[in-house]
Amino acid sequence: MMLERYALSPMRELWSPEAQYERWLRVELAALAALEGLGVVPAGTTAEVRARARIDVGRIREIERDIGHDLLAFLWALEEEVGAAGRWIHYGLTSSDVKDTALSLLLRDALGIVLDKAGALAEALREFAERHRETPMVGRTHGQYAEPTTLGLKALCWWAELGRDIARLERAREAISVGKLAGAVGTYPYFPPEAEERALAELGLAPARPTTQVIPRDRYADVLFALAQTGSLVEKVALEVRHLSRSEVAEVAEGRPEGSSAMPHKRNPILSERLCGLARLLRATVSPALEDNALWHERDMSHSSVERIILPQAFILVDYMLVKCRELIRSLRVYPERMLGRILDSRGIVFSEGLLLALVRAGLSRRAAHAHVARLVAEAERAGRDLKEIALGDATVRERLTPEEIEGIFDLRTTLREVGRIFASAPGGPQGRTRSEK
Amino acid sequence: MMLERYALSPMRELWSPEAQYERWLRVELAALAALEGLGVVPAGTTAEVRARARIDVGRIREIERDIGHDLLAFLWALEEEVGAAGRWIHYGLTSSDVKDTALSLLLRDALGIVLDKAGALAEALREFAERHRETPMVGRTHGQYAEPTTLGLKALCWWAELGRDIARLERAREAISVGKLAGAVGTYPYFPPEAEERALAELGLAPARPTTQVIPRDRYADVLFALAQTGSLVEKVALEVRHLSRSEVAEVAEGRPEGSSAMPHKRNPILSERLCGLARLLRATVSPALEDNALWHERDMSHSSVERIILPQAFILVDYMLVKCRELIRSLRVYPERMLGRILDSRGIVFSEGLLLALVRAGLSRRAAHAHVARLVAEAERAGRDLKEIALGDATVRERLTPEEIEGIFDLRTTLREVGRIFASAPGGPQGRTRSEK
Amino acid sequence: MMLERYALSPMRELWSPEAQYERWLRVELAALAALEGLGVVPAGTTAEVRARARIDVGRIREIERDIGHDLLAFLWALEEEVGAAGRWIHYGLTSSDVKDTALSLLLRDALGIVLDKAGALAEALREFAERHRETPMVGRTHGQYAEPTTLGLKALCWWAELGRDIARLERAREAISVGKLAGAVGTYPYFPPEAEERALAELGLAPARPTTQVIPRDRYADVLFALAQTGSLVEKVALEVRHLSRSEVAEVAEGRPEGSSAMPHKRNPILSERLCGLARLLRATVSPALEDNALWHERDMSHSSVERIILPQAFILVDYMLVKCRELIRSLRVYPERMLGRILDSRGIVFSEGLLLALVRAGLSRRAAHAHVARLVAEAERAGRDLKEIALGDATVRERLTPEEIEGIFDLRTTLREVGRIFASAPGGPQGRTRSEK
Amino acid sequence: MMLERYALSPMRELWSPEAQYERWLRVELAALAALEGLGVVPAGTTAEVRARARIDVGRIREIERDIGHDLLAFLWALEEEVGAAGRWIHYGLTSSDVKDTALSLLLRDALGIVLDKAGALAEALREFAERHRETPMVGRTHGQYAEPTTLGLKALCWWAELGRDIARLERAREAISVGKLAGAVGTYPYFPPEAEERALAELGLAPARPTTQVIPRDRYADVLFALAQTGSLVEKVALEVRHLSRSEVAEVAEGRPEGSSAMPHKRNPILSERLCGLARLLRATVSPALEDNALWHERDMSHSSVERIILPQAFILVDYMLVKCRELIRSLRVYPERMLGRILDSRGIVFSEGLLLALVRAGLSRRAAHAHVARLVAEAERAGRDLKEIALGDATVRERLTPEEIEGIFDLRTTLREVGRIFASAPGGPQGRTRSEK
Repeated sequence: MMLERYALSPMRELWSPEAQYERWLRVELAALAALEGLGVVPAGTTAEVRARARIDVGRIREIERDIGHDLLAFLWALEEEVGAAGRWIHYGLTSSDVKDTALSLLLRDALGIVLDKAGALAEALREFAERHRETPMVGRTHGQYAEPTTLGLKALCWWAELGRDIARLERAREAISVGKLAGAVGTYPYFPPEAEERALAELGLAPARPTTQVIPRDRYADVLFALAQTGSLVEKVALEVRHLSRSEVAEVAEGRPEGSSAMPHKRNPILSERLCGLARLLRATVSPALEDNALWHERDMSHSSVERIILPQAFILVDYMLVKCRELIRSLRVYPERMLGRILDSRGIVFSEGLLLALVRAGLSRRAAHAHVARLVAEAERAGRDLKEIALGDATVRERLTPEEIEGIFDLRTTLREVGRIFASAPGGPQGRTRSEK
Repeated sequence: MMLERYALSPMRELWSPEAQYERWLRVELAALAALEGLGVVPAGTTAEVRARARIDVGRIREIERDIGHDLLAFLWALEEEVGAAGRWIHYGLTSSDVKDTALSLLLRDALGIVLDKAGALAEALREFAERHRETPMVGRTHGQYAEPTTLGLKALCWWAELGRDIARLERAREAISVGKLAGAVGTYPYFPPEAEERALAELGLAPARPTTQVIPRDRYADVLFALAQTGSLVEKVALEVRHLSRSEVAEVAEGRPEGSSAMPHKRNPILSERLCGLARLLRATVSPALEDNALWHERDMSHSSVERIILPQAFILVDYMLVKCRELIRSLRVYPERMLGRILDSRGIVFSEGLLLALVRAGLSRRAAHAHVARLVAEAERAGRDLKEIALGDATVRERLTPEEIEGIFDLRTTLREVGRIFASAPGGPQGRTRSEK
Repeated sequence: MMLERYALSPMRELWSPEAQYERWLRVELAALAALEGLGVVPAGTTAEVRARARIDVGRIREIERDIGHDLLAFLWALEEEVGAAGRWIHYGLTSSDVKDTALSLLLRDALGIVLDKAGALAEALREFAERHRETPMVGRTHGQYAEPTTLGLKALCWWAELGRDIARLERAREAISVGKLAGAVGTYPYFPPEAEERALAELGLAPARPTTQVIPRDRYADVLFALAQTGSLVEKVALEVRHLSRSEVAEVAEGRPEGSSAMPHKRNPILSERLCGLARLLRATVSPALEDNALWHERDMSHSSVERIILPQAFILVDYMLVKCRELIRSLRVYPERMLGRILDSRGIVFSEGLLLALVRAGLSRRAAHAHVARLVAEAERAGRDLKEIALGDATVRERLTPEEIEGIFDLRTTLREVGRIFASAPGGPQGRTRSEK
Repeated sequence: MMLERYALSPMRELWSPEAQYERWLRVELAALAALEGLGVVPAGTTAEVRARARIDVGRIREIERDIGHDLLAFLWALEEEVGAAGRWIHYGLTSSDVKDTALSLLLRDALGIVLDKAGALAEALREFAERHRETPMVGRTHGQYAEPTTLGLKALCWWAELGRDIARLERAREAISVGKLAGAVGTYPYFPPEAEERALAELGLAPARPTTQVIPRDRYADVLFALAQTGSLVEKVALEVRHLSRSEVAEVAEGRPEGSSAMPHKRNPILSERLCGLARLLRATVSPALEDNALWHERDMSHSSVERIILPQAFILVDYMLVKCRELIRSLRVYPERMLGRILDSRGIVFSEGLLLALVRAGLSRRAAHAHVARLVAEAERAGRDLKEIALGDATVRERLTPEEIEGIFDLRTTLREVGRIFASAPGGPQGRTRSEK
């Protein structure tokens, strides 16, 4: 309903009723061909069924209204089209054989789309990281100035995490690329295991064996968790944009901020805010997915309505988020001079650790050095002066460090000298990952 | 998208874009009338705007595509229709004034529908409870036979809990029946508090005062929690139906069970299963609703996309669940003779507590009596005999109890004699609640 | 285990095993006295049991290790102490009668503590709000400067929300102030309803009637939700402190920030951060509490282990959060001059709505006025000049507004003139609430 | 607090404060040795520090009460013990370097314990599966008799799923076997990347590179999700035990059921119920773990209190669950004759699909065959007769099938003939998995 607003092509089309019936038919035909190959079904049946089969959504719905069973409605409608050979359709199968196997086809394809979008975002993040590898800015912990970092290093962390998400998505795709044609309780009473193997091979799926009536739902929870983790990375990027674009910081700005009906001066980063909200929705699908796992005996149907809602919701949202996050990054306005200015305006306190360590090297106990530098910082803030100046004029410091040493401590290049090496050695990123997975 | 399957009228219509624009217009007109009443806006403006205002969804969307702000698009489209007087629309307001106040109108009406459906279910539950007040059956704890109860008493518990849910829904409706026309940060800089009071009074809402830019989101979490609790009651009913209709129990059956594509003998209680699944989805909306509460400063927009999804989802699902649960109860097939037979087949063990207490009354320590009755039960099960017979032939028992006393212990009427009184005194049910709330 | 760190007295003691056994004994004695009053139990029994009863935790545990049932172990140990009269203890009761009723006593008392702490926080918030009622600062929406507000108004919103939380906690306390002595499946087969009424009256509880074996778990979910909502208010306060104390903002600071092992200059608002984290844990208890509601038939025991963990966890955490949030607020350092400076440094853009509305009053269409003021703001930012100056020099503006009118638009007192009235009329705050509840 | 009840050795000890300080010291020593190896720190320093270092918990706590920083308190206490060389401890590090790296050591070890317990459960499940490979019982879907299966096949499904959980746990262990010694914002300003590599190699960890101040929290969410999935498998086993041991089914019984204080006849499967409850708690940790991921800038501390609670909780609970689930399975009482009896008592309806398919083979359309068999089943139930007899006497059937063919349809061996093959080919189980992972 309101999900429409976030549904992009081609993700959206995957979830249409028509696409579902097409997948059901694909599974029925693959099963039929397998049985025919084993001689269970008369030669030529599959070809005849394939030739005559036609999805008539209206007719299926009409029958469904009458008998209240969606897959039976599909079968009877199909049998009407196909005629006598149609009696072989669904031979030895139960509804879940068709539905779960078809759902695997859907999830595999949907994950393929998500992986494409994630790959495109990863590329944008890496490009952004490289572009800003040497763009210095204040690093902040606990919302407080910590030490210098670079904008590119932030983005490199996102890129590396997205690489882990891509690996999760790939594993989830592998986990769900299984089918199941084992009958009502998983015992293959009327559909032989060999036929399952043949049919699934044609569909590009592995057997989920052993199963009950259904493919075990732990595999679906993997999928939803991988999507939620991916959403969490997008949230991380978006949260950073929101922080860096707040009025007092203004180090970045969304490319297309939104105005206000009341305040003509507003330029709100609403895309980032929206992405943060959507991540909450993805998170919220994991618990129901896990609740769906422990079913009664060989299967109960309580998972079905849950999946009908959360699967399209999670896929449509994560697809949207990946696309929009890429747009966000690619159109982000960056203000490097303001970033640098913030370091310069910090009175040198972001180098306090360097001073502490120099005093330790010079023989002071760590505790004494820590306390002394804290005092110097307090003095710098009270007096509105630079920590470097304060240090240069401080007896304790000057007894132990030369002016050149003190100057060196407050040199931005020193603290950022390893950034290139971090970029060079960053493991786990999408590209490395993709290669190693092959 | 797949939510469509559960969307019933008139709940469905409440969530349409058209209905939303109508509510926005209602709020704008109420605000305008209030300003006019206070002399801020020229006399006659409201009448003129009301006469000319027309919602043109196509035009609104066109503008929105262009400027990327839904409420501004609505305003500009409206101003195009209204002409010069249209400049007064939205005077002193910010988008959230209109959107949040309009959302309150929606939620109030949606809760009204839910309350109607809950009331109808409560009636059906009470009727079912009365009909089966004296229908004895085995009570089970831990899935094990405990002591006799009646089918009606189960239903009376549901009815009473639904009464508590109705009270929760009513409180949630009260919590959300508030509006807010306090401007960009809640300070009424350009729209006076008196105008808010007048406008909200016309809309039947109270002021949410004090607020930031938005109505605080704790109120919305109340709504979602009340819906989730209501869903939990439906789950409780449906879970009982599933248990009582399993093959080995077969004490009830759904009125319209579903068959199987593979097994012509199946009659599956899929409605109950579906209701259990949907309760999981309702539960899963509470956490995002709570995550939405702590926004940045006077407001950030992260809650917006969350609400766009979970509000219609929760309302549409709970509406469906209440309607279907009522159908379930009204069409439920009940097999009283099988219920009674189960008590008779239990070899009297469901009366073991009566025997224990009789021995205590006769002077045995509780621990000794407990151990002794446990031994007699074990013997009854080993021998396939009735506990009463075993007791009648046991020396320890016979020293302390007469045969008449023993017979009395195993009398079903004794253990159920208070059921009528429970019905008579049940507090907290919908009817009592509704009365006391007035 | 790690929860110890957050456990404060007297909340902590409520959850000890000793306190639990004491409560069990209280319930057993109340039940016994009620039976004696009705003549079911010999006169004098209660007095004798009360005189001899002694909780021997070691002995109880010894028996429990042997028989694996905690309440039976309690009973047998008690019977050992009491002697012959001890056989009447637990007469007509089942374990859940005692445990659930005793749990209600615990939850009622624990909610009492939480309400005390919430009341103390409310007082601190109101005091803080009054103190800073006229402390102007920039209001921010979407992290962007919006319009002026005051620090006190922020706090007034917290105070009002906490008032709603207090009402929720009070309702939860009422919901859980019920007991149940209705036997194994809720039918009162051996313990008469009148005895329940007498015993519960002595304990200060109402009958939960009708029930199954247990008090319905929807009531417990109410408790956990009320705690989670309260935690969410604390999160809201703490989140604001984190934002306002970030280096670029520095409008407030925690009274006792934490340093860093590496960086002697750091003063981190870790209490606020911790409070935000703990709110996540409270949120996470609501879903399991709701999952606990739909039990099998007259009761299954799956809720028990859940409650054993989440109940103490939620109460201990919320108790800690309320105490610490009060400390946070009372020791918060506030920098009013920096707040005011921020408004002055904003180049007047926070008054843009006033200019827009003045142009509307002067006859411009809203759309035209909106676009025009947006252009003036852009010019002000580009030129690094004040919006007021720009406006004074702009032909479109000067044709419609006098210099005096323009000056008035940029007057902080104008936009904050209603703050006093908001304070005066704030409904729903703790004090009003507490009064109306009495 | 109440978690104590579930804490088993050696898992419990891992989470003690003493063990935490030992791990912090291990990390500090590894870092020191690495710096010494690179010549940053004077030769011999590490040996001297190692020789003198002593954890004095009392002293650490005393300092912590004073300065309010746990790691600084640890450092100052250590420096007191070590003397002058102690100033080199923590050189170039920030608190998170030590804490996060030490936490990885803990999580790796804790996962090792969980994997051991999971392996032991897997063995018990496989053994149980093999023992009951040919123990026929009714398979049930939707709580309704479906078709025959075997008890062993149920257990094989659990075993296979546990194999997937083991793989998840192993991947989570790999994901978290990373350390980080990159300084305050991840830029290695004072601790060179080579030193990190050396130190982590000594600890058996890989570099998490790139990082912010902390190891990214997506890795921890992986851990909690893997634990929740494992808990979900235990829930699945326990839920089946609860269903199969309910009074009307009685096909299995817990080895040590619990009695009732009121009803001497009760034998309740409370272990299984408890395991189901605990699974809810594990599920509830995933959402807070995901909320912890998107931190502010280079790090905020909101994740810390969350992890302090959910990490020990999740590990202690899953450890307990795996141990108890193994006990449950190994001591489970199984009643094969009752299982077989249930198939025999089913009037042959569990073979209805076989009859349907035989009619399809004989030329009937599937829809006609389905409807016809459904009628025969209804007749069998109405008349209390066997479906086979009804079929043998039915004209439509007899025109198409010989008596021998009909007899064959109702042969249990036919429907179970593939069970051996399923066992032989079951992929993904723990053994296969463990082998392929090596």
